[in-house]
Amino acid sequence: MTVKQLTLPELVAACGELGVGNVGLWREPVQEYGVQSAAKLVREAGLNVSTLCRGGFLTAIDADERKAALDDNRRAIDEAAALDTGVLVLVSGGLPAGSYDLPGARERIADALAELAPYAGERGVQLAIEPLHPMYAADRCVVSTLTQALDIAERFPASQVGVVVDTYHLWWDDQVPVQLERAGRGGRIATFQLADWITPLPEGVLNGRGQIGDGAIDMRHWRGLVEAQGYAGPIEVELFNEGLWARDGMEVLAETADRYRTLVL
Amino acid sequence: MTVKQLTLPELVAACGELGVGNVGLWREPVQEYGVQSAAKLVREAGLNVSTLCRGGFLTAIDADERKAALDDNRRAIDEAAALDTGVLVLVSGGLPAGSYDLPGARERIADALAELAPYAGERGVQLAIEPLHPMYAADRCVVSTLTQALDIAERFPASQVGVVVDTYHLWWDDQVPVQLERAGRGGRIATFQLADWITPLPEGVLNGRGQIGDGAIDMRHWRGLVEAQGYAGPIEVELFNEGLWARDGMEVLAETADRYRTLVL
Repeated sequence: MTVKQLTLPELVAACGELGVGNVGLWREPVQEYGVQSAAKLVREAGLNVSTLCRGGFLTAIDADERKAALDDNRRAIDEAAALDTGVLVLVSGGLPAGSYDLPGARERIADALAELAPYAGERGVQLAIEPLHPMYAADRCVVSTLTQALDIAERFPASQVGVVVDTYHLWWDDQVPVQLERAGRGGRIATFQLADWITPLPEGVLNGRGQIGDGAIDMRHWRGLVEAQGYAGPIEVELFNEGLWARDGMEVLAETADRYRTLVL
Repeated sequence: MTVKQLTLPELVAACGELGVGNVGLWREPVQEYGVQSAAKLVREAGLNVSTLCRGGFLTAIDADERKAALDDNRRAIDEAAALDTGVLVLVSGGLPAGSYDLPGARERIADALAELAPYAGERGVQLAIEPLHPMYAADRCVVSTLTQALDIAERFPASQVGVVVDTYHLWWDDQVPVQLERAGRGGRIATFQLADWITPLPEGVLNGRGQIGDGAIDMRHWRGLVEAQGYAGPIEVELFNEGLWARDGMEVLAETADRYRTLVL
């Protein structure tokens, strides 16, 4: 998503040139290219798909909407399995129109996972609940903290349900160190994502994630926190940023790799 | 601030017409009108000043900046005393430029309060730490949760330092019920403010607070939560909203009073 201006073949080639061995993919470009073709493309390039983004949106009250969401998540699990990635990222969903009930919405996510988690586990895919920043609680994700994500994930085997640790969403929360210990102990850290916090936020607050190093978050400190809990998997830089999307994708990818070497390694 | 298009005399007259007995004032219009004149105006109208907004911005590392902030907060305390309000709201301040250190910034707030709290207490003013939504943590307020606000407030006598409970900032946080109990037990709830959460958020995310009833927050539920902890003071509706500011101020105030009667009482 950081360089969504690149086609899938361009992205794969660019990763090869830059020595990037892992890539997080999103479902839409994979579906456009064809799931099997995308799987072949990355496999032949020797590239590992770290995660597939995204399933989720599991908070519907309406029975038809709920069924449609479950069906779509099963398809997402199948796509993750086809891409040979072990992690499907979930954005859990916001409040249904007219509802005030955050705890109820969180409970419906757990109910949906009870149906999806075994299906995912049988296909070698861990569902990764991503706590999103509280500014998205109404319209995108009622799971706002690592604590809440773990409260849900721990109802299921760790091989089936884990959590996403994303600096952008969690950087402000003083409970993170304790909850990272909890997550690490339980084998729940499915992936670790970086984006920096920059202000002012843009309208809609979706596409204002900063290039690492441009904002308020100490990336190396976060890497230390997460790796101290035993996480040894890929680290993803996931930026939604209109400014970065308007630039040459290869240049942005090279800049990101350079920032990563300087600020994270 | 909800109707900042009104002059202070217009606001006071409008409150009289609508039967509103309490008003929260901001420092800037009070200073423009003259503190003593403003005090006389509200006193003669029989209007109680529920709170004065705002002091704070106490996170500076630079010694000169810190001293300037302390001086300004003493002036704010004096102004609150002159207006005969018992509460000065504090917006604590964000991260200084280049700093990543949220815990350090929170500690500097506590250090500053150690100087300010006795000064406030002697003048009958309670300093009210306002936890601001986590989306403001970098640039406005490193105190993001009621838990953190109480952690700081409880280092001082309750007569000197309390907390603000504002639905807009806290609605997403599942720790609120437990922390409200803690706040109520300690006599720490200095004021209770309402604003609704509406999306999409505007650029800069400052002026997107929704009229009560327009968003994701159950206002009557919140009133119940807060009053169950013994809070019996005024309830303030504090909206920063470009749309409301562009309308006739008297009409907005009447609408707000009407919403309050329907949705809160």
